Amino acid sequence: MTRLDLNILGCGSATSTLRHLPSSQVLNVRDRLMMIDCGEGAQLEMRRLRLKFSRLNHIFISHLHGDHCFGLPGLLSTLSLLGKTGTLTVHTFADGKRLFEDWINYFSRERTFNLEFNVIGTRSETIYEDDAITVRTFPLRHRVPCVGFRFDEKPKLRHICPEAVTAHNVPRYFYNSLRQGEDYVTPEGVVIPNAQLTLPPEPCRSYAYCSDTMPSARVRRAVEGVDWLYHEATYGDDCARQARNRYHSTAREAATIAHEAGVKNLILGHFSSRYTDEQPLLDQAREVFKSTMLAREQMTIDLNHDL
Amino acid sequence: MTRLDLNILGCGSATSTLRHLPSSQVLNVRDRLMMIDCGEGAQLEMRRLRLKFSRLNHIFISHLHGDHCFGLPGLLSTLSLLGKTGTLTVHTFADGKRLFEDWINYFSRERTFNLEFNVIGTRSETIYEDDAITVRTFPLRHRVPCVGFRFDEKPKLRHICPEAVTAHNVPRYFYNSLRQGEDYVTPEGVVIPNAQLTLPPEPCRSYAYCSDTMPSARVRRAVEGVDWLYHEATYGDDCARQARNRYHSTAREAATIAHEAGVKNLILGHFSSRYTDEQPLLDQAREVFKSTMLAREQMTIDLNHDL
Repeated sequence: MTRLDLNILGCGSATSTLRHLPSSQVLNVRDRLMMIDCGEGAQLEMRRLRLKFSRLNHIFISHLHGDHCFGLPGLLSTLSLLGKTGTLTVHTFADGKRLFEDWINYFSRERTFNLEFNVIGTRSETIYEDDAITVRTFPLRHRVPCVGFRFDEKPKLRHICPEAVTAHNVPRYFYNSLRQGEDYVTPEGVVIPNAQLTLPPEPCRSYAYCSDTMPSARVRRAVEGVDWLYHEATYGDDCARQARNRYHSTAREAATIAHEAGVKNLILGHFSSRYTDEQPLLDQAREVFKSTMLAREQMTIDLNHDL
Repeated sequence: MTRLDLNILGCGSATSTLRHLPSSQVLNVRDRLMMIDCGEGAQLEMRRLRLKFSRLNHIFISHLHGDHCFGLPGLLSTLSLLGKTGTLTVHTFADGKRLFEDWINYFSRERTFNLEFNVIGTRSETIYEDDAITVRTFPLRHRVPCVGFRFDEKPKLRHICPEAVTAHNVPRYFYNSLRQGEDYVTPEGVVIPNAQLTLPPEPCRSYAYCSDTMPSARVRRAVEGVDWLYHEATYGDDCARQARNRYHSTAREAATIAHEAGVKNLILGHFSSRYTDEQPLLDQAREVFKSTMLAREQMTIDLNHDL
């Protein structure tokens, strides 16, 4: 299987506590690392999880609340101290570019890598793609401009059947075309259908990140059908009113979005510091959507498999 | 004894590692907390050490390298979320005021406390004093403008002898004057010398913080005679040249400063991440100055007692 792991660096809200760190995760797409949000302490959690700084080339910031971005200056400074090369792109709003650039230009003048900012807006758009993945934003409903991110794997290459290609004398140089689905035409002009020479590729997986937001029909449509959904569940049923007032969601509401959007698996996170045990939040969510789990710092989730 | 504790939140250099956090400490002066430098993660270490956020009213930033101040936005944000009241003063250079204010005004607009900046320079000056302590800056010798901080306790109150005041019928309202050293004059006009009614106060203690700096005669003079000195020891003898190039000190150089300045106790810190064991640094320092110890995260040192 091509690797698709989600590493949880922080799944608390608002402030660091001894129980949870502020928001940050690292998506590992075929050993290329993409960070989603960068709360204070994210760089240390990357070390704890033994994630390679050199493989990190994209950081996506969902919104400009401190618990989602205060780890950025320290991380970028460390990347330079470690001699990172190549280009690192920070995807953030215009205000973020201004604020981060101001600090980074002061504190990390001598950079070993090329730092780029990709200014994003709150409308739904494709903000990045490569041969493996497409990243789209979609608007969340929070107190400040805020977006979710949807990661969709691109179609993968088909698998070559060793016996079949040997039997039909397919030359090696044609293997790549075969993996991309082309038929093979022999020197005699006989067409060997691709399906006789290859097996189907692995299915394309998808992941969506929604933090911070109150329940929203637009969010539900944006995450429709994803294999894995990380949805904030700042509160439990006991604080439904507070959730509404602060533009957050309860665990039950997150599960309702997951159910209605037909996602396969749900991860709850962004827990309020008021909870010293999130089991009730999990229980409440599972009443609505069974395939739910709680995020936890230093957890690695293989998104190729379902719960 | 009146309380004078030093809490080490971080004693690494440059970047967070799994061994050390970047620079930060909290001096507890009679249960009033003063933070010295604020590297990333300082707020979490305060929680680990169970230091009360509500008692923190001063933060002194030695210089504007990220490993000495990247924890500030998160700490200030947390203080507001916890509903801190009163005034918090950040003592920093003009550039720091501009950089920190810019972020704080964006990320922590709604503050529950009054935030003030005291702009300091690199010349030696008294930047704060209250009834318990005087704080002076002195120039360090680093790649960027950088100051050390010297904390001198103010003379303390004398101790009243219960038997003596009873024997001489000293009225209660006069106790405070007695503690400040006044003689008591009886209604009959007889002078009872203070020394007959009180015992001497506890000695005034002093502490100096020097990070980051190469060895300097000005530093040596500034820390002369302090009870406790925290001096950076980024490197060991093996990296003496690197220390010089980077405007840092070796452990041996720190000990030489301590010896020549006639301090009583030395704490080494700001260790390079190259060391996985600082024992050699301690050994090298002790060859020059015996009363030396290594700093360690989450350590609390009672500055009222010597090593």
